[in-house]
Amino acid sequence: MAPSRLVMKFGGTSVADVARIGAAATRVKREVDAGKQVAVVVSAMAGATNRLVEWTSAVSPLHDAREYDVVVASGEQVTAGLMALALQALGVNARSWLGWQIPIRTDDVHGKARIVAIDTDLLGERMAQGQVPVVAGFQGQGSDNRITTLGRGGSDTSAVALAAALHADRCDIFTDVDGVYTSDPRVVAKARKLDKITYEEMLEMASLGAKVLQTRSVEMAMKHRVRLQVLSSFEDKPGTLVVGEDEIVEQEMVSGIAYNRDEAKITLTRVPDRPGVAAAIFGPLADASINVDMIVQNVSEDGSTTDMTFTVAKSDLARSVRLLEDLRATLGYRALVPDPNVVKVSVIGVGMRSHAGVAQRMFSALAEKGINIQVISTSEIKVSVLIAEEYTELAVRSLHTVYGLDAD
Amino acid sequence: MAPSRLVMKFGGTSVADVARIGAAATRVKREVDAGKQVAVVVSAMAGATNRLVEWTSAVSPLHDAREYDVVVASGEQVTAGLMALALQALGVNARSWLGWQIPIRTDDVHGKARIVAIDTDLLGERMAQGQVPVVAGFQGQGSDNRITTLGRGGSDTSAVALAAALHADRCDIFTDVDGVYTSDPRVVAKARKLDKITYEEMLEMASLGAKVLQTRSVEMAMKHRVRLQVLSSFEDKPGTLVVGEDEIVEQEMVSGIAYNRDEAKITLTRVPDRPGVAAAIFGPLADASINVDMIVQNVSEDGSTTDMTFTVAKSDLARSVRLLEDLRATLGYRALVPDPNVVKVSVIGVGMRSHAGVAQRMFSALAEKGINIQVISTSEIKVSVLIAEEYTELAVRSLHTVYGLDAD
Repeated sequence: MAPSRLVMKFGGTSVADVARIGAAATRVKREVDAGKQVAVVVSAMAGATNRLVEWTSAVSPLHDAREYDVVVASGEQVTAGLMALALQALGVNARSWLGWQIPIRTDDVHGKARIVAIDTDLLGERMAQGQVPVVAGFQGQGSDNRITTLGRGGSDTSAVALAAALHADRCDIFTDVDGVYTSDPRVVAKARKLDKITYEEMLEMASLGAKVLQTRSVEMAMKHRVRLQVLSSFEDKPGTLVVGEDEIVEQEMVSGIAYNRDEAKITLTRVPDRPGVAAAIFGPLADASINVDMIVQNVSEDGSTTDMTFTVAKSDLARSVRLLEDLRATLGYRALVPDPNVVKVSVIGVGMRSHAGVAQRMFSALAEKGINIQVISTSEIKVSVLIAEEYTELAVRSLHTVYGLDAD
Repeated sequence: MAPSRLVMKFGGTSVADVARIGAAATRVKREVDAGKQVAVVVSAMAGATNRLVEWTSAVSPLHDAREYDVVVASGEQVTAGLMALALQALGVNARSWLGWQIPIRTDDVHGKARIVAIDTDLLGERMAQGQVPVVAGFQGQGSDNRITTLGRGGSDTSAVALAAALHADRCDIFTDVDGVYTSDPRVVAKARKLDKITYEEMLEMASLGAKVLQTRSVEMAMKHRVRLQVLSSFEDKPGTLVVGEDEIVEQEMVSGIAYNRDEAKITLTRVPDRPGVAAAIFGPLADASINVDMIVQNVSEDGSTTDMTFTVAKSDLARSVRLLEDLRATLGYRALVPDPNVVKVSVIGVGMRSHAGVAQRMFSALAEKGINIQVISTSEIKVSVLIAEEYTELAVRSLHTVYGLDAD
């Protein structure tokens, strides 16, 4: 039988200083001693990337993303070398690998490149010889021999891509939280750590505001069926496994309640209702790279006008308002009502595919607490509602209880 | 006529922060605007390399030099990217180049590698198209795709090697001093900045304690006839040219007085004088990588024993003493007398080749001040003496005056 292969990824807080790098190395050694073939992926030391980004902005606010990548990729380079040294100090045969040395080939979208291919011949060979590769996360190699980076949080993606390319049995993501919770423990005291969660649910959680894993890394794990584990580098206990549905025997109807305060609502009242009105509104926003999330449209009694409500990122609100005001004559709406004081609360669970009434239970629970729902959007495995921001905690806690997620 | 080519190298204090990087970029732009083809070489931001070195030592005191190189080379990578951005912000077409991207090929002596070859095809092509390459100093690429570094101060060597490979008309080394002085201005208030100095003299100055340029960079400049200029990045005035003798019309007899407090003296008394005794003493020191500098041997009146005096680096004194004490039975000396309180003072000048009496004048000047000479060593263009450390300032100032070097 082939020895089991493990990719271990350590985030910024897990390698924040020399002592923590040493502690992380000790965890790696334990897996090596247990006979596993291990590859390590590291982020930059906590704070390092921010400092490098600040320098590039200070030198040139409109910077060349290719040079930005040269600067910020140095953070992971430092950690990769230090981690290799820390492993060697424990007697583990280890070597650092930078993106260009493997190489990890990406496209040329500097600053948020996508991995195209990882050549694992050399890495696999060295691992078979007992060496632990320590791979600098977040970076790759584009064309013309240039360094690329994958965007913030990209080291998760590096780890998953490497695990897929190496056909690893699991990819462990060490971070400063001990797993994925049924909800944000800062808001819901009774939130429980989940033992397992499906890729689909994790993906919804990530895109709905849970910041445990980068969305793209979960998509990639799902696509390549890489078993992920999110766990704490500071505690010695299992974390949360992110896996396919087939690995989860007893599926709960709902596995988590997420919330996102980063959205703002815009309402256009009395828009003349004619074919193409939606395109006339959302086309210009898309052209300005403004993502629209939730959309509802209410037709007036006589059918001649419509009220259009939608959400954008809070950081895009001012720009969106300016853009739509400029289009007022074209669109012909009566009023533009922006509202940043909203929150999107979501109920997530693959189990709702086979359980009716999940959304209805949510609406009732919120109504019972006197919380008005402004917008609703649903997908196969989640129901999201937009409500006034002041109800965030009340709504999230109530739903957590209603769906039976509270810890004993 | 081909446009003139210039290599501009900025040391750590010249790129210590974002503002200084901007100032350096402005100097580069001026040369570009004057129609020159410019290549830039940068060191790490002042303090960056020390911090990185400390981390490697903290993780693993006996570190793998290959991983050390991965970590410390990141310092120059950051500056190269930032300098390229700063140049772009001024409207200069610029691009950063790391050692492996060019590549600058070195041997595999990690931590103090030597440059083997620089492929300038691509750089030269881009320069001809009007692009300024910003090259990370201090680093290269060894075998197995690994990053090497050239040893402390190695960015000077990177710059000279690049200037040689690019057939540049000059290599400007920007630093925190405004040139090469006739002596250390902290000791000799009347020290003068030299307009020109020969490679040979600069080499002696560098190896005798003047810390303006790395010795190896001067050797390389001499070998490849690269015209060097040492100048300040904080003042806008010419520095000191380091050139061949043919470029110096009126050669002064002596061009500088150097001193070095980093040596210690060891005397072995009454060593039985037999063939091979020097080899028996210095062989084991060489085996232990201890460099011996000055050596004198005095035979006793009856010729049966000899006193052997020599100098080693102060940092090697304790180790040397231990090693020689272990060999006492074999060597048969009577006493071992270590003395760290010495200084080597040197008079340097290519002019002394054609002027007699330079050494004699030195000996007289020191005698006049009552300074006892303990050891003498000479080369074609320098005379060095070892004296008690407490006389350092007196000796250096007296000699500076005697040889007519004092500023008006």
